[in-house]
Amino acid sequence: MKPRQIISDMDSYVPGKSQDEIAEEFGLKKEDIIKLGSNENPWGPSPKAVEAISKELPNINRYPESQLKDLVSVIADYSGVDDSQVIIGGDGADEIIDVLAKTFIEPDDEFIVPLPSYMYYEYLLMQYGAHPVYAKWDLDENALDVDSIFNSITSKTKMIFLCTPNNPTGTLIERKDLIKIASENPDILIVIDEAYFEYSEVTNKDLINEYDNVFIIRTLSKVLGLAGMRIGYGLACAEIIEYMHRIKPVFSLTRLSYAAAINTFKDKEYIARSIEDGIESREYLIGELSKIDSLNVFPSKSNFILIGVKDTGYTASEIAYEFMKRGVIVRDCTSFKGLDEYWIRISICTMEDNRKFIDIVHEVVD
Amino acid sequence: MKPRQIISDMDSYVPGKSQDEIAEEFGLKKEDIIKLGSNENPWGPSPKAVEAISKELPNINRYPESQLKDLVSVIADYSGVDDSQVIIGGDGADEIIDVLAKTFIEPDDEFIVPLPSYMYYEYLLMQYGAHPVYAKWDLDENALDVDSIFNSITSKTKMIFLCTPNNPTGTLIERKDLIKIASENPDILIVIDEAYFEYSEVTNKDLINEYDNVFIIRTLSKVLGLAGMRIGYGLACAEIIEYMHRIKPVFSLTRLSYAAAINTFKDKEYIARSIEDGIESREYLIGELSKIDSLNVFPSKSNFILIGVKDTGYTASEIAYEFMKRGVIVRDCTSFKGLDEYWIRISICTMEDNRKFIDIVHEVVD
Repeated sequence: MKPRQIISDMDSYVPGKSQDEIAEEFGLKKEDIIKLGSNENPWGPSPKAVEAISKELPNINRYPESQLKDLVSVIADYSGVDDSQVIIGGDGADEIIDVLAKTFIEPDDEFIVPLPSYMYYEYLLMQYGAHPVYAKWDLDENALDVDSIFNSITSKTKMIFLCTPNNPTGTLIERKDLIKIASENPDILIVIDEAYFEYSEVTNKDLINEYDNVFIIRTLSKVLGLAGMRIGYGLACAEIIEYMHRIKPVFSLTRLSYAAAINTFKDKEYIARSIEDGIESREYLIGELSKIDSLNVFPSKSNFILIGVKDTGYTASEIAYEFMKRGVIVRDCTSFKGLDEYWIRISICTMEDNRKFIDIVHEVVD
Repeated sequence: MKPRQIISDMDSYVPGKSQDEIAEEFGLKKEDIIKLGSNENPWGPSPKAVEAISKELPNINRYPESQLKDLVSVIADYSGVDDSQVIIGGDGADEIIDVLAKTFIEPDDEFIVPLPSYMYYEYLLMQYGAHPVYAKWDLDENALDVDSIFNSITSKTKMIFLCTPNNPTGTLIERKDLIKIASENPDILIVIDEAYFEYSEVTNKDLINEYDNVFIIRTLSKVLGLAGMRIGYGLACAEIIEYMHRIKPVFSLTRLSYAAAINTFKDKEYIARSIEDGIESREYLIGELSKIDSLNVFPSKSNFILIGVKDTGYTASEIAYEFMKRGVIVRDCTSFKGLDEYWIRISICTMEDNRKFIDIVHEVVD
C-alpha cells in the first residue's frame, strides 16, 4: 500500500532506547538514574491525584465521560477564563496542537517557528502538509528576534508558534512583542505555548479576550506533575474552541487522567510548593553551574537550564554519554534545529539529586 | 480565524449529557444505573491490571516510555504475529483509525462502509477530506451484502471498513468474503475491525501474512475490560506498520494504561472467564428477549444485541427514555446510518443486572 507522499518522504522510524535498555547498557539500577532530560516535576504527583486515581480504579472498564465538564470548569477557574474558552487534550498539549492543525491547516500553508524552540510543532504540522518557516531566537541576547518573525510572514502564513518561557532557551518573550505580533496580524493564529508559565509566574492568557487570533497552550506534564497521564489544555476565544470541539477525539482522556487532573488543580498547596521548590532548585543549579568556567549557563524562567558545553572540549553527545555512564540523563540538544552540537539542557531536580549531579559535573568537566 | 472548509461545514458541537446529569435528571443513584449502552466488560478490570496500576502510581510525574516494546511483544504473542506487525494506539482503536487516515488518506479519496456499521470511521476520515461511499449490511439476512461492496468500488476507493462481528448488527462477515474482497482489490486497504473478535472466537488476523492490503483493528476496551484506559492496536504487514510509526503520536499511551494493558494480557484466567461469562450472558439475554413477541432480537457473536422495537409501539428514542427512567442506559441506534428510528442495541451485563433488566423490559413492553 502506498502512503501519502509526505509519509514516503519522511525518515524511517528508529526506536530510541527505553530506560530499561539504558539501565542495562550502563549497568545502572533503573531507580537510581537521575532524570534531567524531560522537564518533569521531580517531586512526584500530588497525593490528592494519587488518591483520586485509586478511588476510580474499579471503573476503568467503563468509557470515560466525553464532556469533561467538571475538569473544564476547574481549568477555567485556575486560568481565570470562561468555560467556553477551554479545550482539553487527552495526549497532553500534543493533542491540542494536533487538533489545532486539523482545524486550521491546509496543504502548503506556512507556519513560523523561531529557532531553537520546541520541535514537536514541526513534527505535527508537517504531517498536514504545512511548511515551516524559521525565524530566530537570538542566543546572544537570549531573546526572541521579533524582526525575524515579521520578516518570515508571507501570504501563506497560518500560524506563529511562540513558546514562553521558550524551550530550550528558558527565558520569556516580552508581552509587548506578543501584542505587537498578534495585533498586526489578525489573520494569523498566534499560538503562545505556556507549558512552563507557572515557573515564570507570568502569563499572557488575558490576551485571548482582546485578540481572537491568540491561542494559549498549556499542559499538566510540568509543574502539575502528571506527564505520565497525558493531559493538556488550550485557551482561546469561544469560536475557536467550538470549531476544535467539532473534530476533537471524543474519548482520548483516560478516566484516571480525568480524576488526577481535577484533584491536582484542587491541591493548591502542592502546586504552590512545586513552584517554590522548582524555582529554588533552578536558582541553586544556575548558581553552582555558573561557577564552572567551561559551561555557558543560560538564565531561566522555567524548570530547565540550557548549557553551552563547547569550552569543555566535549560535544553535547559526548558529554551526555559521560553523564549517562554516571547515572544521569540530560538532554543532548543536537536535534534542536537552531543549535549546534554543543548544547545540553538539564531539568531541575530534588536538592539531593541536585547535589549529586553537581558533584558529577565537576567529575566530568574539571 | 477561519477554519478549514470541512470544519466550517460540520455541525456545531452539542455536548451530550454526562452520567451525573442523567442521574440527577431521573433521580437515580449513579452507582445503581445499569449501563447497557457502550459494550463494555461489565465485570470490571483484571485485578492484575489494577494491582499493576497501583504499583506505577508514584511514577506518573514521568513521561511514558515512547517505545512500548514490552507491550508490543505481549500483543504480538497474544495475536500470534511478529512484533514488527503491531502498532499500539493511545486513544483506543480510535487513534489507530486516525493514524491510518493520516498515513494513507488524500483529500477526495473515497472509503466504503456497509451500513449500518461503526460510525466513528466516517467521523474521522471525513476530517481528512475523504468521502464515504455506503455499501449495505443486509438486515433481513443479517449478513454483509458482498455485491454492494464491489458495486461501491471506484478508482478513488482507498479503504474499505469491515467490522466483524459487525457493530451494531452483531454477526460475522464470512472469511471467504473477506478473502475475495482483499485478493481482488490489492490497491485498496481492507480494514477489518475485530474489536469484538474474542466473543466470536473467530479471527482473520492471519490474513495479514498473505495480503499486504489487510489491516486488523483491535481494542482493549471490550472483553479486556479497559475502556477507560484508551488502548487499541493494529496488526498489518511490517511495511504499513513502519509507515504509521513515522507519524504516530509519540507519548499518547499513559503510563498507567501501559501497565494495565501488559498485566491484563498476562491474566489469562481473567480473559478466559470474561469471554465465557460474556457468551453465557449474551445467550441468556437472547433467550429471554426472544420470548417477547414485539421485539425483533438479532443473533449475536459479540457482547451486544441489536433489537428492532417497531412492534412495541415505541420509537428507539421513546423506549430508551422508558428504560432510562427505570435506571437502564441502552443505545438508541437512530444515529446509526442505515437503521431507521426503531432499533436499540444492548450490551451484555452481569447475570444479576440481566435479570433486573429483563424484568424492566417486561414492565415497559408488555
